[in-house]
Amino acid sequence: MSDTRSLLAEAVGAEHVLAAGEVPADYGHDEALGVAAGRPDFVVRPGDTTQVAAVLRIAGERGLRVTARGSGTGLSGGAIPVPGGLVVSFERMNRVLEIDAANSVAVVQPGVTLAELDAAAAAHGLVYPVFPGEMGASLGGTIATNAGGMRAVKYGVTRQHVLGVEAVLASGEVLRAGGKHVKNASGYDLTQLIVGSEGTLALVTEAIVRLYPRLPYQGTVLAPFGSLDQVTAAVPGIVGSGIGPLILEYVDTVTMAAITAAQDIDLGVPAAVRDKTLAYLVVMVEERTEERLAAVEAELAELLAGLGAGDVYVLPDPAARRLIEAREKAFWAAKNAGADDIVDTVLPRAAMAGFLAEVGELVGSGGGGLVMGCGHAGDGNVHLAVFQADAEARSALMHGIFAAAAARGGAVSGEHGIGTAKKRYFLELADPVAVGLMLRIKQAFDPGGILGPGVLFE
Amino acid sequence: MSDTRSLLAEAVGAEHVLAAGEVPADYGHDEALGVAAGRPDFVVRPGDTTQVAAVLRIAGERGLRVTARGSGTGLSGGAIPVPGGLVVSFERMNRVLEIDAANSVAVVQPGVTLAELDAAAAAHGLVYPVFPGEMGASLGGTIATNAGGMRAVKYGVTRQHVLGVEAVLASGEVLRAGGKHVKNASGYDLTQLIVGSEGTLALVTEAIVRLYPRLPYQGTVLAPFGSLDQVTAAVPGIVGSGIGPLILEYVDTVTMAAITAAQDIDLGVPAAVRDKTLAYLVVMVEERTEERLAAVEAELAELLAGLGAGDVYVLPDPAARRLIEAREKAFWAAKNAGADDIVDTVLPRAAMAGFLAEVGELVGSGGGGLVMGCGHAGDGNVHLAVFQADAEARSALMHGIFAAAAARGGAVSGEHGIGTAKKRYFLELADPVAVGLMLRIKQAFDPGGILGPGVLFE
Repeated sequence: MSDTRSLLAEAVGAEHVLAAGEVPADYGHDEALGVAAGRPDFVVRPGDTTQVAAVLRIAGERGLRVTARGSGTGLSGGAIPVPGGLVVSFERMNRVLEIDAANSVAVVQPGVTLAELDAAAAAHGLVYPVFPGEMGASLGGTIATNAGGMRAVKYGVTRQHVLGVEAVLASGEVLRAGGKHVKNASGYDLTQLIVGSEGTLALVTEAIVRLYPRLPYQGTVLAPFGSLDQVTAAVPGIVGSGIGPLILEYVDTVTMAAITAAQDIDLGVPAAVRDKTLAYLVVMVEERTEERLAAVEAELAELLAGLGAGDVYVLPDPAARRLIEAREKAFWAAKNAGADDIVDTVLPRAAMAGFLAEVGELVGSGGGGLVMGCGHAGDGNVHLAVFQADAEARSALMHGIFAAAAARGGAVSGEHGIGTAKKRYFLELADPVAVGLMLRIKQAFDPGGILGPGVLFE
Repeated sequence: MSDTRSLLAEAVGAEHVLAAGEVPADYGHDEALGVAAGRPDFVVRPGDTTQVAAVLRIAGERGLRVTARGSGTGLSGGAIPVPGGLVVSFERMNRVLEIDAANSVAVVQPGVTLAELDAAAAAHGLVYPVFPGEMGASLGGTIATNAGGMRAVKYGVTRQHVLGVEAVLASGEVLRAGGKHVKNASGYDLTQLIVGSEGTLALVTEAIVRLYPRLPYQGTVLAPFGSLDQVTAAVPGIVGSGIGPLILEYVDTVTMAAITAAQDIDLGVPAAVRDKTLAYLVVMVEERTEERLAAVEAELAELLAGLGAGDVYVLPDPAARRLIEAREKAFWAAKNAGADDIVDTVLPRAAMAGFLAEVGELVGSGGGGLVMGCGHAGDGNVHLAVFQADAEARSALMHGIFAAAAARGGAVSGEHGIGTAKKRYFLELADPVAVGLMLRIKQAFDPGGILGPGVLFE
């Protein structure tokens, strides 16, 4: 082991190698609920791609299993190392290398946070439109999980914005895929394969991501509905209108009460309306001019009223901004309230009401516990907080929830990733032919099986 | 061979098997220039997924190499069979299985043409936004090549719209990947890997594709520029404005003269302006209302004037529509003019002017011949028609063109695919680590190497 340490020190510098006893607890976990932390034998903090390649060569030779780490804000345990494992932390590879406004792209290192990239892009009137609710997340981590977030209904998810990567393979070879071009029909899209692979195929050391014009005017409309059926029925009407919402969220009344109380927000909804409300739609639009914004807000209000909303509120700016921020912190509200697990399943958006009704039945018919939620209604991406302290009952309830989504053509995770936390549900419910192919792809990239141990597969 | 015929007849019905002597010449080629046609031993026309699976099992057992065929409109020779090979033609699997407006998706068989899907989507006020210029192309073919087209600057290319596939593997196993959901973080994205794989990994038997609101108002602005530098410099200004053009094309003056003459279109550009023009920008916008369209057209005209356009013409409808149609037929205009090969290279859009200048030098400095073109300026996707009858000189010129794109961070093909026609340039210029991985992925999907013989790889 001391031999391994000196090899790693040679690769990245002695001051950037931590061995078992010296590793702070933070390197052993991410933010996933109910997953035990790991204890790696080593943490290394490489400073560049050459160092990452050297580390992976050592890991390959020594049979060390490698867990990549960005900011540790993941929600699926994808950053939890295995005993005896090696954590490659990208905290030092944290530079925005270039904002190329002429090509509308940024070139970033994996340790850059979304907040840092946002600030760099804003200086050029541009935006990287992935806002998963945690601006401390690293670009590397969001690429690993194919992060989504509220604005995906307009802009799409991470995979739509990653144009190319430099990545180190398990062999230590450096791969370059894609580039500063928005289309490509020249062989298999390795960039797309690496996006969402949760650190199991290669370690991304640089990424080229798309930027978009930063539209200056934003407006938010809140619409209470009397039933989830009505909410679900309203969504295609909004998407189909061509208004192109930036955000299209549903929030159930329990969650709305929790997040507004946590942030001390008054939405100005009278008690008489609140009492008849089972869920809210929050619709945000953005435009280039104030005139266009005013016109779209008015159009949206009329549309929502026609789609069965109990009332419609165009929120003034501070309340609107604070509501979106509170919604982004829904995970923390759930955690603070003692949630035992979370779900971010995705399904055809028109199937959401039926799915949520079935979830209610699962809870009512002996599953027990409490399930509350909100979600990206335009994307069919449902976020649930599950309160059920009994591990066995919780596991059965979680299984029932994912099975209900799968039966409607859904998938286990829409944006958090499978990691270690949702692996058993994923492996139970996924198409076995697909899982077989994934294992063969894993083998093609990483024949020694050193990358992302315990993530996705057993 | 008669034994193979009877096995295939058992699989798809005797009337849907053609053996060597009976195979019409059309099954031996697509629309690629300068590529010799092939002569397959068999053509089969399966009617459903089970039949495709049965055919691939027979092919695997008999060592028959399989070329998938949609409408045969490809431009890279991807549908050209090898001697002794088997063509799987999807002409009978040509149904739009579902237009699901509530989820904004269509479920289609691979033999459906873009024109057929467009008609089906239009009936619901929706659009499938891939318009590669050939509406007779099949969905299967466009998925195989990750087709782009003029509207990609707004909507993105095929891969952004394919949410899921059913596909038959070389083993005959049926894979289901993705679904009617727009985001997914549940394992490797096999759908994205299959899109653009040109029939070398699996045969797509069903696809779930995204549809979008069909915006009713479209306007077209034509702007002549005095130099390609000016055109290239104007593009980021248009994209960065947030106007969100539907189409952003450049057309050089030679090509503009050829396509307008071929279609007998008068654009109303005075001779005095034409004489000072080296290239045109054609910008199309679409909006939900007439008012918004008028406002955006005015804004665009002002913007273009500020960006150095020699003049700006808001084209009236018939001329506008006919110009776009003529631009879509640029390939045919080039072919009729006797073009010997075509290029659809992609590069960072800001690098286009320098690239085109270098192409001009290649032609001038002894490469000889004539190169003219147009392209998707917003996407950095350059279409060139190459006139050089001498095969050796043409090969050197083509190599020089692709090398000039690669040196600027580009790739050989932006939307046509590599097929058999561009393979040698691709293999020469691609990252060897990437090609090595692609070959291992190919092996993971198709260990016997029966799918897409001669496509992408040797």
